[in-house]
Amino acid sequence: MSSDLIFHQLFEKESSTYTYLIGDPKTGEAIIIDPVLEMVERDYKLIEELDLKLKYILETHVHADHITGSGELRKKTGAKIAINESYQLSCPDIGLVDGQELKFGNINITAFSTPGHTNGCMTYKIDEMIFTGDVLLIRGCGRTDFQDGSSENLFASVREKLFNLSDNVLVYPAHDYNGLTHSSIGMEKKFNPRLNLSVNKAEFQKIMSELKLANPQKIEIAVPANLQCGLV
Amino acid sequence: MSSDLIFHQLFEKESSTYTYLIGDPKTGEAIIIDPVLEMVERDYKLIEELDLKLKYILETHVHADHITGSGELRKKTGAKIAINESYQLSCPDIGLVDGQELKFGNINITAFSTPGHTNGCMTYKIDEMIFTGDVLLIRGCGRTDFQDGSSENLFASVREKLFNLSDNVLVYPAHDYNGLTHSSIGMEKKFNPRLNLSVNKAEFQKIMSELKLANPQKIEIAVPANLQCGLV
Repeated sequence: MSSDLIFHQLFEKESSTYTYLIGDPKTGEAIIIDPVLEMVERDYKLIEELDLKLKYILETHVHADHITGSGELRKKTGAKIAINESYQLSCPDIGLVDGQELKFGNINITAFSTPGHTNGCMTYKIDEMIFTGDVLLIRGCGRTDFQDGSSENLFASVREKLFNLSDNVLVYPAHDYNGLTHSSIGMEKKFNPRLNLSVNKAEFQKIMSELKLANPQKIEIAVPANLQCGLV
Repeated sequence: MSSDLIFHQLFEKESSTYTYLIGDPKTGEAIIIDPVLEMVERDYKLIEELDLKLKYILETHVHADHITGSGELRKKTGAKIAINESYQLSCPDIGLVDGQELKFGNINITAFSTPGHTNGCMTYKIDEMIFTGDVLLIRGCGRTDFQDGSSENLFASVREKLFNLSDNVLVYPAHDYNGLTHSSIGMEKKFNPRLNLSVNKAEFQKIMSELKLANPQKIEIAVPANLQCGLV
């Protein structure tokens, strides 16, 4: 974490979702990544208390386990919603493409296409921090068995893109179910049970194909809602 | 947060407790603050993966809402348990006094007596971060109606000690119930509804006397267990 940033990691207990509020202390411009509908009042209050001007609301992907707070936060702040253009959604303001840069204050954020959990998943990078959504989790990864998930794509996204970053890059995921708050590329290369460097693609695909997970409780309401920025 | 530290904030959902694992990257020596019994395996695994040598296990106070993992972690690591000497406990290795300094690697940590939630509560300070236990929470504070809590003492601890620190000092509490992870002295001076600078001592004491909270669910087992470092 850079001391040149205002940085707040925020947690929502029901879906164990992390939201990130990041601001430029010099200009007060800020972004939020993956806000949760039920926590919009909390997040908006914090934005006001910190005297931030929210410029962008970024989604790492179309979530299946909670409804996004993006639409409500846009109403309150006027910020622009950005998500991968490949979802072809009508409600966001910005359709992002691989490698696209956005700027808030003096801070650059780069969007990288990292498909696998869904085909439109993006990882965002600021300085030496990445916000990986559900692609790379701490000692885990997102499931690949619904929406247009692909274990082949996820393996490539993590091993060929994310693991090419420096070992000291910090990993901030969209979820953790065990109370961990961040990791690093170096730690995941070593200790991720599914994706560490000793696991090959066929082994990874076998692991993912055998998970046999129940669908997320909220998938039937969350996905349709999230196609409309949570405004249902 | 200083980039010269290994820093992991860890969360336990049932009691909404934050544990902090902090290491010196140069020497690998580390401390943990307020470990939770049920999360000892998680914490120990992380200590091993990070290749840290745990030197001290620090308690901010005798907790009433969860059982400490200190005794179990001491068994696994050989680290020394430290808590305010005023509790007169026999199981810890170090009885701390106000102003005492401990060192791990090249990092200094100072223990300040901040009574109020219990009489033995301590706040720990490393660089520009403080670990406040249940004395100062984010936009709140610990209750003062059991053990030997005192709203008068808590007011003095926060307003005369903690609020004398620089506004940019980051506040890391033992709990948050709304998914916030840290605050700062400047933010709490302004926005803490009970303790902001416009609230006087009589008003604070009235607020605390009217809370009428139920006892924590686990108090009858947690406090006796925590008098023995959780080894029951």
